[in-house]
Amino acid sequence: MLIKERLLIPGPSQVPPQVNSAMGRPIMGHRSGDFAKFHEQLAQKLKKIFQTENEVVILTGSGTAAMEASVGSVVNPNDPVLCIVTGKFGERFVELARTFKAEVTVLEYEWGSSYDLAEVKRVMAEKQFKLVCATHNETSTGVANNIAFLGKLCKEKGALLLVDAVSSMGGMDIKTDAWNVDLMVTGSQKAFMLPPGLGLVAVSPKALEIINGNDSTNYYLSLKKAKKAQAKWSTPYTPNVSLFYALDEACNMILNEGLETVFSRHQLLARACREAVRALGLTLLAKDEDASYTVTAFCGDVDTEAVRSLMKKKYGFAVAGGQDRLKGKIIRIGHMGYMDIADLLGAITALELALKEVNYPVKLGTGVGAAMEVIYQGGEQK
Amino acid sequence: MLIKERLLIPGPSQVPPQVNSAMGRPIMGHRSGDFAKFHEQLAQKLKKIFQTENEVVILTGSGTAAMEASVGSVVNPNDPVLCIVTGKFGERFVELARTFKAEVTVLEYEWGSSYDLAEVKRVMAEKQFKLVCATHNETSTGVANNIAFLGKLCKEKGALLLVDAVSSMGGMDIKTDAWNVDLMVTGSQKAFMLPPGLGLVAVSPKALEIINGNDSTNYYLSLKKAKKAQAKWSTPYTPNVSLFYALDEACNMILNEGLETVFSRHQLLARACREAVRALGLTLLAKDEDASYTVTAFCGDVDTEAVRSLMKKKYGFAVAGGQDRLKGKIIRIGHMGYMDIADLLGAITALELALKEVNYPVKLGTGVGAAMEVIYQGGEQK
Repeated sequence: MLIKERLLIPGPSQVPPQVNSAMGRPIMGHRSGDFAKFHEQLAQKLKKIFQTENEVVILTGSGTAAMEASVGSVVNPNDPVLCIVTGKFGERFVELARTFKAEVTVLEYEWGSSYDLAEVKRVMAEKQFKLVCATHNETSTGVANNIAFLGKLCKEKGALLLVDAVSSMGGMDIKTDAWNVDLMVTGSQKAFMLPPGLGLVAVSPKALEIINGNDSTNYYLSLKKAKKAQAKWSTPYTPNVSLFYALDEACNMILNEGLETVFSRHQLLARACREAVRALGLTLLAKDEDASYTVTAFCGDVDTEAVRSLMKKKYGFAVAGGQDRLKGKIIRIGHMGYMDIADLLGAITALELALKEVNYPVKLGTGVGAAMEVIYQGGEQK
Repeated sequence: MLIKERLLIPGPSQVPPQVNSAMGRPIMGHRSGDFAKFHEQLAQKLKKIFQTENEVVILTGSGTAAMEASVGSVVNPNDPVLCIVTGKFGERFVELARTFKAEVTVLEYEWGSSYDLAEVKRVMAEKQFKLVCATHNETSTGVANNIAFLGKLCKEKGALLLVDAVSSMGGMDIKTDAWNVDLMVTGSQKAFMLPPGLGLVAVSPKALEIINGNDSTNYYLSLKKAKKAQAKWSTPYTPNVSLFYALDEACNMILNEGLETVFSRHQLLARACREAVRALGLTLLAKDEDASYTVTAFCGDVDTEAVRSLMKKKYGFAVAGGQDRLKGKIIRIGHMGYMDIADLLGAITALELALKEVNYPVKLGTGVGAAMEVIYQGGEQK
C-alpha cells in the first residue's frame, strides 16, 4: 500500500521543495567574485536568525564538525573547561574537550532534566574556567536549557560560552548576543530545513581574540582560518556550494515567514504534541518549563520500539527512539523546520493507531483531539 | 505561519515526486524510433490498468478532449444517442452529443443519486441507440454508477457504450472489457497522479469499425487518426512528451503497488472519510452502495464555503465545493491517486477544526477518531 515517507525524527528534518530546487542551481566557482557576493548577503541573513552582530562561519561538515571547530580552536591542553551535561549531546562536549586535552569539569544531570542553576553558579564561583560548554536544546531528551542565565554568569566570570543549538536554531527564540554566547553552534539538517552537510558557528570578538592567539591543531576545522577567509567572503577549503544555495533559500523562507511566527509555530506544535501525549496517558520526559519546541520525548507502559516500527511501516511516520541509556525506553518526535499543523496531527494519529495495535488502551481520537484543542485555542489567541 | 499546500480536490490531484522528476527527462523527438519503442511499452502498462485488450489512445488534451474525441469520432448528425446524467459531467456528454448534432435522449437523475437501472433498461428496449454515454464516477457528486449493467444492456442491444472514468480510472476497479465498454475515457490529473494535460481512450474493435467508417469533423481530436498513427506507435500531432514520461512513471507506481492494493487503498480512504463525515453529524450526498472510492461529497447545517476557506487558509487543505446547482451547498474531498492514510486523516482534522471555528458543534477528535477506527479495522482485515 502507498505510504508516503514522513521524516519526523529530531533531525535530519523535512526539506522544502524550494530548498531542494535551490540545490539544483549551477555550481559557482567558490573563488569567484560572484560567490563572494552571494556569501556576503547570505551571512547577513544568518545574523538575523542567530540574533547576533557576530559573523556566522559556515563550515562544510556536520553540527559535530562545528562543535569540534569551536572546542579545538579555543582549547589548549590543560585549559579548564566546564561541561554542563543534560544528555547525549552534552556528553559530546566532554569528549571533545578531553580530545583536546582540556582539564574538564563535568556537571551532569539526569537525562530529561535541565541543569541546576544554583549548582552551576556555585561551581563557577569556586573555579575560573576558560570555556563553558552547554547544550541549548538537548536533542536526546527534548529539554531546552536556560542559556541566558549561563551567559550572564560567563560574562561576569570572564569565561567563554560555547552553546550547542544544533536542534533549536531557526526554530526557537535564541538571542545569541543578548545571552552573551561567544560561540553559537548549529547544523543544517534541523530547523534550518536543509539536508545534512553544513555546520554554523557565530563567533564573538572575544572568542576570536582567543582563537587568533591560539596554536590550534585543527586544520580543516579551524575557526581561525575560517574567520580569516570570511573577511574576504571566502572559505579556507572547498565549501558545499549547493548547500550554501539551499541555506540561502531556507533563510529566505524563515525570514519571510518572520522569526516571531516561526518561533510561535514551533511552540504551538510542541504544546499540541505534549497535550496529545498527556491525553494518551503517556509520560513526558521533560517538564513543561524545560520543554523544547523542536523535539518532544515521552515514555509509557508500552513497547516503544514496536510502536515506532508500526508508525513507520504502516503510516510512514519516522520518529526516533532513545539514545544510549534511553535506548528502547522513549519515543522522540521531531517537530522542527518544515513542519506544519497537519504534519504534527498526522503523526499523532499514527501514534494512536500504533498504540492501539500493540494493545495499549486508547480510544482513537483522544490524543489528536487534545492536540487539536491546543491548535484551536492557539489559533484563537493570535 | 508555514502551511503546506495539500491538494485534496477531486482533481487535479497530488503529483508524486518521482512523477515530477520523470517530467524533467530530456525531450525525445516524437517521430523517433526511441519514442515509438517507449510509447509501445507504455501502452502495455495502460492496458493492464484499464483491464482491457483494447489499445489505449493517448491524446494531448484534457479529459474533456478525450470525451469530445470519442463522441465526435462516433456520432453523425441525427444519430440516436442516449445520455445518462447523474451530475455535471453527465451533462457534458449531452452538450457534446448536441454539438455533433446527435438526436439526444437524456435520462437525468438527481445529483447525488445513481441512475435507475430499470428505467434505463425500459428506454433502451423502446429505442435503438447508436451510442450510450454514461459517467462511471461522477466527480461532481461522488457517485459511482453501475457500468457492468449498462455494458450488458448495450451489448444485447448493439449500442456502443462510452464511459467517462476520468476521476476513477487508476483508483477503482474498472473492468473495461468485462463490462463491455467500447470507449473508456480518462484524464491524467486524477487517480493517474499526473498534472493535467493528457486524455486517454481505450477503443474497442467494434467502436473502431464505426469510427473508421465515419466522416467525422474532428481534426485534432480524431480517434481515427490517433488509432492509425498508433499502429506505428506514433501520434497524429505533437504529443506532450514530458507527460508521456510522467504517465509511464505513474503506471509503474500503480502496477508496482499492485492494482488490487491500489483499489483497496482507495476504498479504505473512502470508507474512513465517510465514517468521519457521519460521526461529525454531516450528511453524505451519495448512499453507501453508490459511493465513489475517489471522491466524497457531503453537506450539513453549516456554511460549507466558510469551512472550505478555513481548511485551506489555516491548514493548507484545498477541498472542493459544489458545482452548478450544488454550488455553495456541499464539500467534496478528493482522495485519489497519490494519497495515503495520513493525508486523509489530516484532511479530517482540518475539517473538524474549521467546523469548530464556524461554531458548528463538534468535539474535536470525533471525526478523525471515527476515520481511524475504519483504518484500524481495515488494517486488521488484511
